[in-house]
Amino acid sequence: MPRTPKTSRASSLGESALIQRIRLRASGTTPPELRLGIGDDCALLSPGPGEELAVTTDLSIAGRHFRLDWHPPESVGHRTLARGLSDLAAMGARPVAAFLSLALPRELVQKPKARSAPWIDRFLDGFLSLARDFETPLAGGDLAESPVAVADVVLTGAVRHGQALLRSGARPGDDLYVTGALGAAAAGLDRLSKLFAAVKKLRPHQRRSLQRIPDQFKALLAPHLYPTPRIAQGLWLARNATASAAIDLSDGLSTDLAHLCAESGVAAEVDAAALPIASGATPIQALNGGEDYELLFAASPQARVPSQIEGLPVTRIGRILARNASAPPVTLITPRGAVALTPRGWQHFS
Amino acid sequence: MPRTPKTSRASSLGESALIQRIRLRASGTTPPELRLGIGDDCALLSPGPGEELAVTTDLSIAGRHFRLDWHPPESVGHRTLARGLSDLAAMGARPVAAFLSLALPRELVQKPKARSAPWIDRFLDGFLSLARDFETPLAGGDLAESPVAVADVVLTGAVRHGQALLRSGARPGDDLYVTGALGAAAAGLDRLSKLFAAVKKLRPHQRRSLQRIPDQFKALLAPHLYPTPRIAQGLWLARNATASAAIDLSDGLSTDLAHLCAESGVAAEVDAAALPIASGATPIQALNGGEDYELLFAASPQARVPSQIEGLPVTRIGRILARNASAPPVTLITPRGAVALTPRGWQHFS
Repeated sequence: MPRTPKTSRASSLGESALIQRIRLRASGTTPPELRLGIGDDCALLSPGPGEELAVTTDLSIAGRHFRLDWHPPESVGHRTLARGLSDLAAMGARPVAAFLSLALPRELVQKPKARSAPWIDRFLDGFLSLARDFETPLAGGDLAESPVAVADVVLTGAVRHGQALLRSGARPGDDLYVTGALGAAAAGLDRLSKLFAAVKKLRPHQRRSLQRIPDQFKALLAPHLYPTPRIAQGLWLARNATASAAIDLSDGLSTDLAHLCAESGVAAEVDAAALPIASGATPIQALNGGEDYELLFAASPQARVPSQIEGLPVTRIGRILARNASAPPVTLITPRGAVALTPRGWQHFS
Repeated sequence: MPRTPKTSRASSLGESALIQRIRLRASGTTPPELRLGIGDDCALLSPGPGEELAVTTDLSIAGRHFRLDWHPPESVGHRTLARGLSDLAAMGARPVAAFLSLALPRELVQKPKARSAPWIDRFLDGFLSLARDFETPLAGGDLAESPVAVADVVLTGAVRHGQALLRSGARPGDDLYVTGALGAAAAGLDRLSKLFAAVKKLRPHQRRSLQRIPDQFKALLAPHLYPTPRIAQGLWLARNATASAAIDLSDGLSTDLAHLCAESGVAAEVDAAALPIASGATPIQALNGGEDYELLFAASPQARVPSQIEGLPVTRIGRILARNASAPPVTLITPRGAVALTPRGWQHFS
């Protein structure tokens, strides 16, 4: 079997050569809004007439947002980009370009052994594959050596003036909806941790056969490893002016609904019985599990909210109320009565 | 002396409260192009009619781009933003908004001891002070806990269609210019390292009196600790269509000139005798020292390049030549003859 030519792999490359390789891999068709991509001091973007530009940044850190020993590099790349695309979806924006800053330990850039690609190449496989699916060119970024792997993704998107879905527009009387099902990503993460706890008990030769995740687990793990940002649904909501407010479920329903209420200056109640709990997930995972990347939105009772948007089910889960200083901002209505729904999603530095 | 109220300091705050504090500190006058800042899934930017948006990202990593034991936190914040602003300057763009992703160890967010502010507060002092000087609102970002301090800054700027200064426009026969003087940042870094080598030899009680950098060093260290991005000069060059190509000197003249030549498909020669070497710097520091953040630009001999731009001297240092496969891309003309000028600036993973 012929050896991979050295120049095509990052085995011993410096920063310039690495950037050159990423530039080659990132090249392809670019939308007219991206006038200039990788290679200059800045990229140049031209939103169309009547459009504004949505910008978001998201950190992904080894040991915090992913684990080098659990997550396939392709999944880390996919999830890094999905976080940013999901923020665009929550604004109703069409992706224009992504920027990627990578701070990586040297061993993740080097070729680990024969016939195995460096971590960074497999990370880019996952990142660029999702980027192609959503027609989002990689337009720039930065690269540096670091003792800990950190990826910061910047997403830019275009949205027509006045059509952006804000967190701040919900009004008392609005209904509250979510796309898709909740808790699947948290259930997948739980399975992933159990899988690796089991692997720990295996002997080395048994472990080697588990270097890649077994097929029977893949479908269960997919919502965690390869989530789908709801770009199509966000665009539909913005185009049809259906939602009064929207946010993506990155931190979990209990936390993200609290954010939406705080920015809108309102309260909300959620019907526990109405929650679309994903198959295999628990109600707690549906309420507090992060990284589902579904959209949570409010809509006036006059708005026509279909039962599916772009092929994805939409469920009414509650309603927006006026803020009341003596009541909790978010209440969960259960068969045993109403309870305060406190944010239980992930918080850094807490 | 009354104690600082707990809510005004990050002593034991979670992510949400920390973001809320940064949001309060970042608020102020915002330019009309920034329609929506911190608080939603994305910020919204509206470049004016006939303008496009320049976007750049820059990583700053503890132990790589700065040292927690050497650099005052205010300097780290200043330099983080200056790197991004300098990229805008090199495109001839006017700053519109900054985004800041901070991955920090917990102790940098906590109050270290009575009457001393947390590292993150002093970092923000430096960042926001420079942001005010250049009318650049902080419009978003991300925040996470990490074992290593990493700051990723995103700068967006506006530039009129067709006026952006690209790296790729230099043509054989053009003259080569730099703003200001070269090597001052490298000389300052050298002094900083010697200062700390000397401090290491002191006893603990002597060290305590050196917690802040002594006044007599400040002027010498300033070009390294608090560099000035050349926004005004970049804007002047773009407005007057003076430069055929431009780049900022972040990695050092030898490296950045090689980038400009590569992107333009040309070669260049530099007159060693013409180099504006900063007072106290060596010729080697002027050639290879990074982080001066001066602008290097090419201009046709027909262009009228003044001896000062917006109060800063401009010096002709060489010329652009046709690329010749048998000659080095960049040549240095010295009294002893011509030598190849090889890139000696910092390269990650090399």
